[in-house]
Amino acid sequence: MKALVYLGPGAKALEDRPKPVLAAPTDVIVRLTRTTICGTDLHILKGDVPTCQPGRILGHEGVGIVDQAGPAVATFKPGDRVLISCISACGTCVYCRKLMYSHCTTGGWILGNTIDGTQAEFVRIPHADMSLYPIPDGADEEALVMLSDILPTGFECGVLNGKVAPGSTVAIVGAGPIGLAALLTAQFYAPAEIIMIDLDDNRLEMATRFGATATVNSGDGNAPATVMKRTGGRGVDTAIEAVGIPATFELCESIVAPGGTIANIGVHGTKVDLHLEHLWDRNVTITTRLVDTVSTPMLLSTLRAGRIDPKRLITHRFKFDRILDAYETFAHAASTRALKVIIEAQ
Amino acid sequence: MKALVYLGPGAKALEDRPKPVLAAPTDVIVRLTRTTICGTDLHILKGDVPTCQPGRILGHEGVGIVDQAGPAVATFKPGDRVLISCISACGTCVYCRKLMYSHCTTGGWILGNTIDGTQAEFVRIPHADMSLYPIPDGADEEALVMLSDILPTGFECGVLNGKVAPGSTVAIVGAGPIGLAALLTAQFYAPAEIIMIDLDDNRLEMATRFGATATVNSGDGNAPATVMKRTGGRGVDTAIEAVGIPATFELCESIVAPGGTIANIGVHGTKVDLHLEHLWDRNVTITTRLVDTVSTPMLLSTLRAGRIDPKRLITHRFKFDRILDAYETFAHAASTRALKVIIEAQ
Amino acid sequence: MKALVYLGPGAKALEDRPKPVLAAPTDVIVRLTRTTICGTDLHILKGDVPTCQPGRILGHEGVGIVDQAGPAVATFKPGDRVLISCISACGTCVYCRKLMYSHCTTGGWILGNTIDGTQAEFVRIPHADMSLYPIPDGADEEALVMLSDILPTGFECGVLNGKVAPGSTVAIVGAGPIGLAALLTAQFYAPAEIIMIDLDDNRLEMATRFGATATVNSGDGNAPATVMKRTGGRGVDTAIEAVGIPATFELCESIVAPGGTIANIGVHGTKVDLHLEHLWDRNVTITTRLVDTVSTPMLLSTLRAGRIDPKRLITHRFKFDRILDAYETFAHAASTRALKVIIEAQ
Amino acid sequence: MKALVYLGPGAKALEDRPKPVLAAPTDVIVRLTRTTICGTDLHILKGDVPTCQPGRILGHEGVGIVDQAGPAVATFKPGDRVLISCISACGTCVYCRKLMYSHCTTGGWILGNTIDGTQAEFVRIPHADMSLYPIPDGADEEALVMLSDILPTGFECGVLNGKVAPGSTVAIVGAGPIGLAALLTAQFYAPAEIIMIDLDDNRLEMATRFGATATVNSGDGNAPATVMKRTGGRGVDTAIEAVGIPATFELCESIVAPGGTIANIGVHGTKVDLHLEHLWDRNVTITTRLVDTVSTPMLLSTLRAGRIDPKRLITHRFKFDRILDAYETFAHAASTRALKVIIEAQ
Repeated sequence: MKALVYLGPGAKALEDRPKPVLAAPTDVIVRLTRTTICGTDLHILKGDVPTCQPGRILGHEGVGIVDQAGPAVATFKPGDRVLISCISACGTCVYCRKLMYSHCTTGGWILGNTIDGTQAEFVRIPHADMSLYPIPDGADEEALVMLSDILPTGFECGVLNGKVAPGSTVAIVGAGPIGLAALLTAQFYAPAEIIMIDLDDNRLEMATRFGATATVNSGDGNAPATVMKRTGGRGVDTAIEAVGIPATFELCESIVAPGGTIANIGVHGTKVDLHLEHLWDRNVTITTRLVDTVSTPMLLSTLRAGRIDPKRLITHRFKFDRILDAYETFAHAASTRALKVIIEAQ
Repeated sequence: MKALVYLGPGAKALEDRPKPVLAAPTDVIVRLTRTTICGTDLHILKGDVPTCQPGRILGHEGVGIVDQAGPAVATFKPGDRVLISCISACGTCVYCRKLMYSHCTTGGWILGNTIDGTQAEFVRIPHADMSLYPIPDGADEEALVMLSDILPTGFECGVLNGKVAPGSTVAIVGAGPIGLAALLTAQFYAPAEIIMIDLDDNRLEMATRFGATATVNSGDGNAPATVMKRTGGRGVDTAIEAVGIPATFELCESIVAPGGTIANIGVHGTKVDLHLEHLWDRNVTITTRLVDTVSTPMLLSTLRAGRIDPKRLITHRFKFDRILDAYETFAHAASTRALKVIIEAQ
Repeated sequence: MKALVYLGPGAKALEDRPKPVLAAPTDVIVRLTRTTICGTDLHILKGDVPTCQPGRILGHEGVGIVDQAGPAVATFKPGDRVLISCISACGTCVYCRKLMYSHCTTGGWILGNTIDGTQAEFVRIPHADMSLYPIPDGADEEALVMLSDILPTGFECGVLNGKVAPGSTVAIVGAGPIGLAALLTAQFYAPAEIIMIDLDDNRLEMATRFGATATVNSGDGNAPATVMKRTGGRGVDTAIEAVGIPATFELCESIVAPGGTIANIGVHGTKVDLHLEHLWDRNVTITTRLVDTVSTPMLLSTLRAGRIDPKRLITHRFKFDRILDAYETFAHAASTRALKVIIEAQ
Repeated sequence: MKALVYLGPGAKALEDRPKPVLAAPTDVIVRLTRTTICGTDLHILKGDVPTCQPGRILGHEGVGIVDQAGPAVATFKPGDRVLISCISACGTCVYCRKLMYSHCTTGGWILGNTIDGTQAEFVRIPHADMSLYPIPDGADEEALVMLSDILPTGFECGVLNGKVAPGSTVAIVGAGPIGLAALLTAQFYAPAEIIMIDLDDNRLEMATRFGATATVNSGDGNAPATVMKRTGGRGVDTAIEAVGIPATFELCESIVAPGGTIANIGVHGTKVDLHLEHLWDRNVTITTRLVDTVSTPMLLSTLRAGRIDPKRLITHRFKFDRILDAYETFAHAASTRALKVIIEAQ
């Protein structure tokens, strides 16, 4: 089969690979119908993710059709249409019992990282009963691809951890796909204000269309002052970090209100300064989280009910044999204005 | 009246001052029967607390007897025995309505900071209905002095924020009075392990007597390895920082388990390194808090019920005219083995 | 001044009464600009509320202008425009400290019950700092009248207690003003389904316009079966009782899913059958609540942000001298299709 | 093998039965070393549990040694010592994902109910990875038998649902084994008061030894008045119903404080009167629950840490061939003073 393979820092190729086979009785083989590319895939390609070794098929998102199911799989049979979670979970380990699937002792984020992923014609999904979701009849499969990773990530790491609440004030730093996913899902809770902060006016304009009540271009260094002014000097109840660099995290520190929360989503490669000399007495909470995808059933419900339209995040579509072009488009988002790119089976 | 007055960095004196008078209809004047000294008073004396200006009477803890009550005070009348909260709260501002009394817009930590405090014969207490508590008949007043600040601080900032729970694993970094108050109140929740970490073997020995299940002297730099080994490589569910310097905060970062919480109590004078490159995907929570004293009624109940014995924190007693000696004793805790010192009216 | 006075079961009159005077330093006298009538006022008129004695001026909702403020009132001064909460709260008693203002030991629901109320030209408001809210500039005062009682009641007793959540399934039994207020505020949480149940097709049609995703006329006795079918045999996550009779409460018992919640809003005059023989092992929660109005600041924020439009609940308007007509219209809602009636100062 | 078999209302026998065999790849066969009898077994024998049909081997508690493990069992192998949970859970269904194992669509309480149980030499455990727990080295197996059902039931249905908290006031109605299990585990949270209510002075005396701060014999009908007096007229924060009849549930209704919780543990065979005419405005919560055994890992931790001593619940011991005597002893608790009886393998 064809697969997009990581070949080491800066290198990738569309290669021929053997079709995966069942390795455990709880495995399923899925034939992909649609997949996508994540910012994390770009991190891997830069060589920033040491757990992912050359030779790995990338990708941890997608929808498809069950091709084969192991004998201990209870929920799925060949022919079933399924949503693939970016997180694999055994359901029974100490972390899974706490609904912290991200830290499953035999799962977590392994797809396209420590085992072969979804940017291929077929993929093996371990712990299939916990790691796949049946696709409801009539569901829009493109929209569902957004539920593999980006929507639960924005929601769990940003909105839930950030305790977004009716009438509250939210700032989201970073209007990329993840920040916009947080923006979409924050609206489940009717906050009074959602202030979107980014350097790119195009993305800020998009944020306004997606429901931001205010936008701030942080390029001039005045973002903290602007946010404080807009919040009557109080700061925001929730500051969501959706970039992953020290400057944006520290921006969150400077705008969080007493009693507020900084919810980190960004993947950080270096330490940041935590200004406890200002924050020690401010009753703030800071959270980190690798998405657990515990919210996937809920997101499926809201999608089915029409309470959210994640297709708005999709800007481009490619056939699988043009996946290298898809990478180009996604990697140059500033010029292509790409958010999420859908890659379809031939 | 006699009062202990801050005269600028490094300087204090026992002076004669006029007795305070009612300034608002919601004020009460309390005649102190017992007060104590807090680590924060030492910070002020070092010049580290710019809000506290020379000339200020120090002290934010104590018990006493109502001397005068303003006309709008509903709960107290002259002669009532009262516990003074270190936090003054109006009860009606936006923060008080969220039970964040520490950030009351006309209160918070003002006693012995921005208004005259309790290390005197009399003190004026603003917002008295919210900031004083009636002392139950037969209560031990010495024990109650521990409820002005140290017990609610250890409990709210450390134990509650740290989500200490039955069967969980807790580490407390810093076995001074605040760390020991956290140790005492952590036991409200029956954690399986409470590991106490400090540099001072005397204090660690005391921690064992107060209920620590293990102690670690961090002097050799191996504390993180020791804690990880003791917790089966997993780390602790709750790490309570009760010192206030970068090294101890970073120790907490290194021992918190996935899904765990770092609850900061320490007063920090400088920034710390937050290692998001390790923590971004660990599902951890970090909290800061200035005590709100919302738990004071609960602490009074547990005290009355004999579920806690805060008198164990008291090591020395002085009459008020020897308060300078009390400061000496408290400031040299390593040699005097002082925890809390009680200062009694003559 | 003119006032609507309860004269005993079945009897009321528009009478001349003396203007109220300040009785405590924390009181405010408000000149009403708008008030309304509540279902509870009809209960009183039936003689069902023994705490309310003949001679009482009715009404516990309204907006107005501060006429006089007691010397201990910190927040309000004559001329301020204010929203009156149906609940008076001292802020300092054991219940207020738990944010259970409904049970304030010197407040709670007293207006138009145990002290004179708002269906008059002037009203005395005790504990004014906690019981009035400043009206934001440019706010629509008609909409604000809905925040005195009906919106916080639907929200706190129904939506919050019922734990309405994104993607969840909700049934609201009773499409009167309170049920519709629950319907409006339930949408803060993006539930997947809100099924409205009533006997009156007009009200159900209105519920559809207000955001119900399904409606069920329970007149044929098949409501439980219909709801179970619609929810795939599982039942609803949240069943909100907004009527106050045994039949509607027992309907809730029959449609709540395992793990679900029955949130009672209705004012009950008699016991109901609790079918523990069916429910003991269903992991259900049942809640009761007199509104605390702790959500008023939040509701003001969502109103200001345009996240909710409570004016939709207003169907009729009357000048104050026609308040008896307003009562007629409100009391015959089936024929007049009245929800909330606004009564304006002359 | 020998097994205790239910033969229809009023009838049981110790019979020879074939040893169970693996029926699914996720099954384990356990050789019992210790089991016990539950009040629910007596209910079955009265014919009150229609799901349990004649011919069924009873019992849902016990510890033992793994005899055989299905090919898809990840955690256990022959020879492992295991604790059996009374609840079987697949871990992947909609209820298991919410940690509501009691409602697992292919599990829940099935042992000794809809499939053969643990009062036998061997038992088949479905969904073994989720339904068995490894026994820590050196653990006391008798104590562990209390963790199959009675401790998690008292804790989850009574203490957790009842929101027992430091300094709070608790009443437990019913001092049988379940009520005493609630009493033991309530002490994880340091409540100020635990008032035990029963008709049997022997059990009340035992409750005092187990940590009750007060006891009330409800035989004279004055229990509500006594509790109200003892709580200063306020009632209890938590009322735990551990009997299962209308009178005891209604007693809970009469003593719960405003804002309090009634946590039902009792198995009810008939409806009860819910006095909403008194409770509608009292801000109370009523909960029901079939134990989920989600707290088993935590209970194992507290047991290992010595924070609880469940062996105190064990009053009698029998060899397996005398299980009929064990039933006699357990069924006549008033005269035998039996709480839990341990039945040991020969």
